[in-house]
Amino acid sequence: MNARMIARILGLVLLITAALLLLPLLTALVYHESALPFALTAALAAALGAPLAFCSRPRSTELYAREGFAAVGLVWIVMSLLGALPFVLSGDIPNYLDAVFETASGLTTTGASILTDVESLSRSGMFWRLFTHWIGGMGVLVFVMAVLPMGEGRAMHIMRAEVPGPTVGKLVPRARKTATILYLIYMGLTAAETVFLLCGGMSFYEALLHAFATAGTGGFSTRAASIGAFDSVYIEMVIAVFLVLFGTNFNLFYLLLIGRVREVFKNEELHWYFGIVAASTLAIALGIFKMYGSFGTALRHAFFNTMTVISTAGFGTEDFTLWPGYTQTILVLLMFIGGCAGSTGGGLKLSRVMLLVKTAAADVARMISPRRVTRVQLDGRRVSRETTDAVYTYFSLYMLLLLFCTLVVSFDGFDFATNFTAALSCMSNIGPGLSLIGPSGSFAIFSPLSKAVMIFTMLCGRLEIYAILILFIPSTWKKR
Amino acid sequence: MNARMIARILGLVLLITAALLLLPLLTALVYHESALPFALTAALAAALGAPLAFCSRPRSTELYAREGFAAVGLVWIVMSLLGALPFVLSGDIPNYLDAVFETASGLTTTGASILTDVESLSRSGMFWRLFTHWIGGMGVLVFVMAVLPMGEGRAMHIMRAEVPGPTVGKLVPRARKTATILYLIYMGLTAAETVFLLCGGMSFYEALLHAFATAGTGGFSTRAASIGAFDSVYIEMVIAVFLVLFGTNFNLFYLLLIGRVREVFKNEELHWYFGIVAASTLAIALGIFKMYGSFGTALRHAFFNTMTVISTAGFGTEDFTLWPGYTQTILVLLMFIGGCAGSTGGGLKLSRVMLLVKTAAADVARMISPRRVTRVQLDGRRVSRETTDAVYTYFSLYMLLLLFCTLVVSFDGFDFATNFTAALSCMSNIGPGLSLIGPSGSFAIFSPLSKAVMIFTMLCGRLEIYAILILFIPSTWKKR
Repeated sequence: MNARMIARILGLVLLITAALLLLPLLTALVYHESALPFALTAALAAALGAPLAFCSRPRSTELYAREGFAAVGLVWIVMSLLGALPFVLSGDIPNYLDAVFETASGLTTTGASILTDVESLSRSGMFWRLFTHWIGGMGVLVFVMAVLPMGEGRAMHIMRAEVPGPTVGKLVPRARKTATILYLIYMGLTAAETVFLLCGGMSFYEALLHAFATAGTGGFSTRAASIGAFDSVYIEMVIAVFLVLFGTNFNLFYLLLIGRVREVFKNEELHWYFGIVAASTLAIALGIFKMYGSFGTALRHAFFNTMTVISTAGFGTEDFTLWPGYTQTILVLLMFIGGCAGSTGGGLKLSRVMLLVKTAAADVARMISPRRVTRVQLDGRRVSRETTDAVYTYFSLYMLLLLFCTLVVSFDGFDFATNFTAALSCMSNIGPGLSLIGPSGSFAIFSPLSKAVMIFTMLCGRLEIYAILILFIPSTWKKR
Repeated sequence: MNARMIARILGLVLLITAALLLLPLLTALVYHESALPFALTAALAAALGAPLAFCSRPRSTELYAREGFAAVGLVWIVMSLLGALPFVLSGDIPNYLDAVFETASGLTTTGASILTDVESLSRSGMFWRLFTHWIGGMGVLVFVMAVLPMGEGRAMHIMRAEVPGPTVGKLVPRARKTATILYLIYMGLTAAETVFLLCGGMSFYEALLHAFATAGTGGFSTRAASIGAFDSVYIEMVIAVFLVLFGTNFNLFYLLLIGRVREVFKNEELHWYFGIVAASTLAIALGIFKMYGSFGTALRHAFFNTMTVISTAGFGTEDFTLWPGYTQTILVLLMFIGGCAGSTGGGLKLSRVMLLVKTAAADVARMISPRRVTRVQLDGRRVSRETTDAVYTYFSLYMLLLLFCTLVVSFDGFDFATNFTAALSCMSNIGPGLSLIGPSGSFAIFSPLSKAVMIFTMLCGRLEIYAILILFIPSTWKKR
């Protein structure tokens, strides 16, 4: 284990965190709130980060796959622990565990909240809360890569650990440039959404914050009633359409930018994505038509809630726990699927679900006619057995963790739907679930043990399990 | 497709069904009920079966794997359709779809019932209802193999399709002899349980019928309150202990019989089985201790309900939907696991769950240190990649079918816990679920569409998916 190299990476991230904390600090100054919580936290981050970043001289700058995973996992845990401090110091969230839950929920873009009175938060605290979505959405280490020089092999190990999806493709031959392009697209889209929301009558503060939350497909809102509070079809549709974009593989935007439009429209994952969104919207609209009287209104709510769940954002407009049973089941199925690979969305990722279905079908065909040659293809290219095996492994681990979290949560004594969808919501980084934790519920009801396991589950979901799991395996910590 | 060979097998099974129907016919005569429903159905079965069995002259008696699967799937569907007739003819269950549901639920040893007033059934109808558990438990085609000569290759294809578990091992070199041994053990244990139940004060009729239901790990009972109606610790413990036995791999009994005791006690699946049962019993007992006052009573109910769920029987004594949330979650987790491979229990099968956990752990290890050699072992022997791949495929198909069934059932408008556990209950062949379909609920609440999909799901669960799925694949029906 190249501990010094990991320490250096951790140090760099702490310095960047200190820099990022200057934004909420600035917000505090603008709104005449105390800037001390952010100043103190930033100072602590810098004081811890500087010696780690500059004084640890790694004997070798090499980084193996497992060290890449361990570094990413460690960084996210430290950021969750550190990012919680401003909430405690300002008194916004006095309980430290609750503050860590809220921060981890923000960074992992889950958007599950332990707050019961969201609107009483300070404006700077609220800024930090929603800004964590934006930081976590694209990944803080991808950001490190974008701004700092790093060896090619090392960079890929880190991208593999932090960028979601069954395979990681580089847009351009160099990983660092890929990271830069990804971040530029991310910033561009966030800026565009802010402008669109401003046009809908939102204040700059709320427009920017909701753009952060949409970009990371997080789901926190400044309002207790979430997006429903604005009561505006325009704002709902802007957010829903940007959720479509942020739930799409960012590689496609790059292809669009360099003019390879045909490739984009041939993308198989995109076809499935649009197909599933259209089918779910229609099926849900038919189910809630009676409740809303007009088919147009039903379609609007169905589209918004389909997007908010499949993109794993979890914004709320209507309380879907009051909708007919099958529409809720459709939403639960969408919670499993999640966004496209290489998007900021969570869940299993659509391309993984596609590979799962295709591989299972091929395996059934082989079982039935052992001599038949069955190949799994994606975008016209053959997918290796190694990749499909990894998908199976991931799916199995996903289900095992989901059931483990359900079990722990169930000790709190709530009903099965609450427990199961709370676990699913954390694992897929959604936010709301069914029953007690629907769009109008709060995660404040759970015990400290459940909250701790949910933090673990959210991190596993965001970092696709391995980066977190590796930290709990003893052999990781042996010297090599 | 060797259609004539399949027709011949189907014919043989129909003839055997006609013979099996003589038992409820006899019961009708003993209790002075009309024997006509059984006589007519037996006559129909014989009239259809005889020409198929004797007049179709297969050009070749060869049977490929897919034909083995198709034959088994077809046989089970025909038996469900035919076995439902006596219920309709006698007026016990006037609706044909309901009768097919009850029969399929019996044959697949699910034990989910659409009856709302069980005790109003005729005694011969009740006999047939519980006898289907016994027929389906060990598999009707394994019975065919035991009594009729059949080529070795063909026999194995059929065993692979009908005997549950990730791999099928022959006890003795010849498949036919293996089948005979399995049936002798099955009969012996059933007879032993009948005697034990008689000693507990049950009538011969009820003792025999409950032995049938235990042997198949089915879960139907002659009483509305199930085993709880007898209010006897002795009877509960006899049934729970026999559920332990019928949930065990039958190969182990054979090893015991021929004196290879050490192998039995070294069996890894058995260790996990006992471990899981002990841990679940204890955890549940601690949770329900307060409700029952005495720890002994809590332990009794915890042990019985752990066994009834993990063996996938689904008998009831207490209504566990009233128990604390986490005890219900433990029961749901047990519903996924199910009995040991080669037992009459349903679910994923314990050895499959073990392979799933081990393979996932090995794959994680490989992901972290790509150069490390990771092997999956079971009982000290290396498990091939082919087998572990098949486990992954099976698990994925299982989850996909489970979610599909949940979606269809949810159109009926009940809550998520009802829909999800109804689907899980059918897929794992349990019987009861949570919420509305707990031990005191009935599947009568569901729509015809849901019932039809549940019949499909129960058959998929019992025959481990492939034998049913293959019937819906067009290429199966092409001439070869």
